[in-house]
Amino acid sequence: MGWQNKFSADADAVSASEIRELLKILSDPSILSFAGGIPDPALFPMADVRRIQSALDARVDDPTRQSMQYSQTEGYLPLRSWISNRYATAEIALHPHNVLITNGAQQSLALLATALIDTDSAIALADPTYLGALQIFGTRRPRYLTVETDDDGMTLESLENAFRQGVKLLYTIPDFQNPGGMTIPRDRRRRMVELAHQYNVPIIEDGAYRALYYGSPPPPSLLELEGQFLGTGKWDADGRVIHLGTASKTMMPGLRVGWTIAPAVVLDKLVLLKQANDLHTSTVNQVMVHELATGILDEHVQVLRRVYGERRDAMVAALRQYLPNTVHFTTPQGGMFVWLTLPEGMDARVLLEKALEKEKLAFVPGAAFHANGGGENTLRLAFSTCSLDDIRTGMKKLAGLIISEQNPAD
Amino acid sequence: MGWQNKFSADADAVSASEIRELLKILSDPSILSFAGGIPDPALFPMADVRRIQSALDARVDDPTRQSMQYSQTEGYLPLRSWISNRYATAEIALHPHNVLITNGAQQSLALLATALIDTDSAIALADPTYLGALQIFGTRRPRYLTVETDDDGMTLESLENAFRQGVKLLYTIPDFQNPGGMTIPRDRRRRMVELAHQYNVPIIEDGAYRALYYGSPPPPSLLELEGQFLGTGKWDADGRVIHLGTASKTMMPGLRVGWTIAPAVVLDKLVLLKQANDLHTSTVNQVMVHELATGILDEHVQVLRRVYGERRDAMVAALRQYLPNTVHFTTPQGGMFVWLTLPEGMDARVLLEKALEKEKLAFVPGAAFHANGGGENTLRLAFSTCSLDDIRTGMKKLAGLIISEQNPAD
Repeated sequence: MGWQNKFSADADAVSASEIRELLKILSDPSILSFAGGIPDPALFPMADVRRIQSALDARVDDPTRQSMQYSQTEGYLPLRSWISNRYATAEIALHPHNVLITNGAQQSLALLATALIDTDSAIALADPTYLGALQIFGTRRPRYLTVETDDDGMTLESLENAFRQGVKLLYTIPDFQNPGGMTIPRDRRRRMVELAHQYNVPIIEDGAYRALYYGSPPPPSLLELEGQFLGTGKWDADGRVIHLGTASKTMMPGLRVGWTIAPAVVLDKLVLLKQANDLHTSTVNQVMVHELATGILDEHVQVLRRVYGERRDAMVAALRQYLPNTVHFTTPQGGMFVWLTLPEGMDARVLLEKALEKEKLAFVPGAAFHANGGGENTLRLAFSTCSLDDIRTGMKKLAGLIISEQNPAD
Repeated sequence: MGWQNKFSADADAVSASEIRELLKILSDPSILSFAGGIPDPALFPMADVRRIQSALDARVDDPTRQSMQYSQTEGYLPLRSWISNRYATAEIALHPHNVLITNGAQQSLALLATALIDTDSAIALADPTYLGALQIFGTRRPRYLTVETDDDGMTLESLENAFRQGVKLLYTIPDFQNPGGMTIPRDRRRRMVELAHQYNVPIIEDGAYRALYYGSPPPPSLLELEGQFLGTGKWDADGRVIHLGTASKTMMPGLRVGWTIAPAVVLDKLVLLKQANDLHTSTVNQVMVHELATGILDEHVQVLRRVYGERRDAMVAALRQYLPNTVHFTTPQGGMFVWLTLPEGMDARVLLEKALEKEKLAFVPGAAFHANGGGENTLRLAFSTCSLDDIRTGMKKLAGLIISEQNPAD
């Protein structure tokens, strides 16, 4: 009988991610892994979670019971208010009706994909870009127009070239990009906003890593710059930037809480799609995120910046010390990732096989982050979950493997 | 500039649900509402939730911290094992790889809609049927072939007629249907399975209300009957029935935990779609559902059956006492709903306006539950959240309004 001819054309377009399969293998704790782009669970604020739960349980209005009932699709109003206050700018007076709570920023991308992409729609995105975006956009069967990047992210020439060909939307991670680690400078951001208006292209700005900076804060978001570009009070009618945020990187991913900030006409459409997809995000988790956000978040993020910043420093220093100068790597100002470009012709997948076999060391080969192929000589390193010693040891081993690979006679 | 021409054709097909809008108005606590098909929050097992949280917090392996990290898309393995054991039959040896955890059964429907429905695919479903299914199926822009119902649910003649025209799938709620309250008898179920195999049609069996029976248990599920039809050990290769369950009706909807049971080839596809859509369902909530399911569920469901059963009895008795015999109503053996068919020509929307105005009483007009229109003289009553006194008072008032409406001269 067979199910194969029962699946939709969209579902036929979906295939297992090589990387996700790799990550399953990596559950072996003896492997020194720089593969997973995940937060360090040792840094989760569990004492605060317990204190908050106890305080909620002691309240006479029994908010936990209330949060166990069905609730509105838009999300828990106090959390939406906190978000709209947090992201409001001098020119953009955000309101809760501009905010939708989702199951992490990944679901924000999913709802936007359904809302904005038809089969064969042209989508502009960086080369490389976030794999999860490619996975969900792929279920809509678009065409990808990849935008070249340098150490400052997307180049304007390549971006305008894509816009000139006509694109339905631009997806971008301006801050400490996953996987590339690049941050787009202010002037380039400003020009991106101008181009979006010139060519009438919506921008999905994925701000997942924005709070995790290890020196100066990143440049203003595209959302904020669009406010300046449009002038006070114009964004809700004329804005093209949709901004995504999440509790996964600064609080805890297991709660599955993220958010979408959009002009009301877009947000209303996303609410209908969210309602059809899963009614609403877990209310009890939204309440917890709200309590953490208003109680301990700013202090907690200071800790994350210090710890992750030290790990970033250790990784960059070790790569400088050990890597041959035939290898290029990015120096991220935040986030979780360093991006390596190996010598032309060296295959990161082959390198990974040897790394696992010889050194029990793992990273993510970069090819999968390229929407239209290429990047076989690139790889992603995450520094977020490893100790400083493991980072130094691991980078030394990785450099040794690369040197062996480029000098096979050794 | 405008966003209207930016939305996809799928998104353009989505519009606000009249009923959802109605439910917003009903947040006024002075209204006596039989509209919302939701569990009674007074019955949520909050003491157990607190006891479980404390026990988890006291464990040295700190499971709550672990459950705050990213985790696998398929779901929390102990919960999937509990489900596969619970639903296994004499002929179907379910395994955890047949189970995907979702954000409530609504997300199961969403993933199945993407997996199985193309634009213009023909979908067979009952008239009336669950509104949330119409909402999410609608985002795929299918054609609906509606199947007529009587007091025993779908009629076989109408179902085979739909199958003969060629359908991509059948969606059905065999137990205590939402909105109709009907339960499909065993013989009819058995024949539905035979027809599905004869015409090679996948069945989505929505078992959301299955555990909430107030007398005898409902007939075997389509899943179980398909196992008998196919013989031992055949279902994973040859099964056409996909079964959906949820923690929302028997535990708590705010946790947003449901599940899909499917042959492995289907489940693997759904896992890929789930991963692309939101990575995974909140792990901390899955842990709670697992603890409740293995600890108190069976005992708790006994309480729900008693309390909801009394409310069902009160509603049916009051309708028998007060309604004129020009009105037909179903007598549900479980679930939350009674379905009324008013005299031909009486519009339930008009009746609702008068009910709100004159009696501050609410219900859901039935038209929206009809995929291809019709049903203006039908309405849905929910008995799950009201006291016995409110049910008696409310039904008397409703009957009075209907009598006034059919005798406008009075």
